[in-house]
Amino acid sequence: MTEPERLRADAARNRAAILRATEELLARHHPQQISMEQVAAAAGVGKGTVFHRFGSRHGLMRALIQERAQDLEVAISTGPPPLGVGAPPRERLLAFLTAAVDLVARNKGLLAALGPEAPVTAAPDRQPREAHPVYRRWHGHLSDLVQQQRPDLDTDMLAHVLLATLHSEPILNALERGDGSRLDHTLRDVVTALMPDEDMRTGRF
Amino acid sequence: MTEPERLRADAARNRAAILRATEELLARHHPQQISMEQVAAAAGVGKGTVFHRFGSRHGLMRALIQERAQDLEVAISTGPPPLGVGAPPRERLLAFLTAAVDLVARNKGLLAALGPEAPVTAAPDRQPREAHPVYRRWHGHLSDLVQQQRPDLDTDMLAHVLLATLHSEPILNALERGDGSRLDHTLRDVVTALMPDEDMRTGRF
Repeated sequence: MTEPERLRADAARNRAAILRATEELLARHHPQQISMEQVAAAAGVGKGTVFHRFGSRHGLMRALIQERAQDLEVAISTGPPPLGVGAPPRERLLAFLTAAVDLVARNKGLLAALGPEAPVTAAPDRQPREAHPVYRRWHGHLSDLVQQQRPDLDTDMLAHVLLATLHSEPILNALERGDGSRLDHTLRDVVTALMPDEDMRTGRF
Repeated sequence: MTEPERLRADAARNRAAILRATEELLARHHPQQISMEQVAAAAGVGKGTVFHRFGSRHGLMRALIQERAQDLEVAISTGPPPLGVGAPPRERLLAFLTAAVDLVARNKGLLAALGPEAPVTAAPDRQPREAHPVYRRWHGHLSDLVQQQRPDLDTDMLAHVLLATLHSEPILNALERGDGSRLDHTLRDVVTALMPDEDMRTGRF
C-alpha cells in the first residue's frame, strides 16, 4: 500500500468509526446532549479529527443521517427483495417502512433535530420538510409502490400520511421508550388493510 | 337589561367578534403575520380591548384554538350523531376526522404555532405535545372509537398515527394550498380499510 493509499484508508476508517460512535451515542442521548469530545473518545480518534471532518455537531448529525438514508436507498435500488426490486409492491412497502422506522428509532430525535417542525416559527428562508432530499425520495418511493397496486388512491397524500408518523413528536417520544415495533406493526396494519395480499385477491394461493 | 348584564353581554359579544375576526385572518395569514391591531380593526373593537382580554397574540391564538376544540368536544359529547353518541364507531370516527381536519385547515398553522415540534431543540421544560389537553382528548376519543370495533389493533398507536397527520409540516403546507379535502379523503380510505362497514360484515344490509 502506498502512503496516499494508506492515508485514504485511514480517513475512511476514521469516518466510519466516528459515524458508528455517533449512532451508538444517539441510541442513549438526545443530539443536543452529545459533545464532539464524547464522539471522538468513543470513536478512538482525536477531537480535532471530528471537527476537521464534520465541521460541527450539526454537520456530523447531517452526515450520519445522509449516510444511513443512502444505505437504505442503495438497498431499495440495487439490494435484494423484499426491500429491493423483485418483491410485490406491498411487500416492498412493508419492508421499507420497517427499515425506515428502524432508522428513525436508532437515530432518535435526529431527523427532528435536522428539520425542525413548527413552520410558522421557523426562519422564513428555511426549506420546508417536503423539500428535503431524503423526505422527497422516501415520499416518491412510497407513492410509487402504492400506485402499483392501488392507483385509485391519492397516493401522494397517503405517502405524506405514512411519513407523518416518522416526525410526529408523540410518536418520536414513543420510539424513545422503545416502541419502534409497535409503530411498525401499526403501519403494517394500515398498509395491509389498504393493500390486500395480491395472491389472495387473485385466488392464486 | 340591567347595567351589569349589558356589560357582560357586551364583553361576550366582543370576545366572540375578536375570535371570529382572528379565525378569518388566519384563513389568509400565518399566525405570526397577524397583528393585534389588525384583529381589533377586523373585529370593530379597540386595540386595548384585545390586549385586555387575551394578553398577547399568543394568548389570543391559544384562546381561539381552545374555543374551537371545545366546540368540537361539545359536539362529540352532547351533539347529534354522527359526531355525537348514537352512530356506529366507524361513522363517529369518520365524522370526527372530517371535523378535526376542517378545524386545523381553518386555523392554518395555529396548532403548529402553539406546540412547536422539534422536541430536541425546544426548551427543556416545554410540555410534550401528547401532554396537551386537546391532543390527549382527541387521542382518547379516536382510540376509544377504534377499540369498539377493532380491539385487536394497537388502538393507542393507531390514534397517534392518525393525529400525526394534523401536525405534519408537509401536510399543513398542503392544507394551506387548500388540500383539506384530500387529507380527509385519504384518512377516510385508511379508516374504512381498517374498520369495514359493520352492516356489511354481519350481512345486515
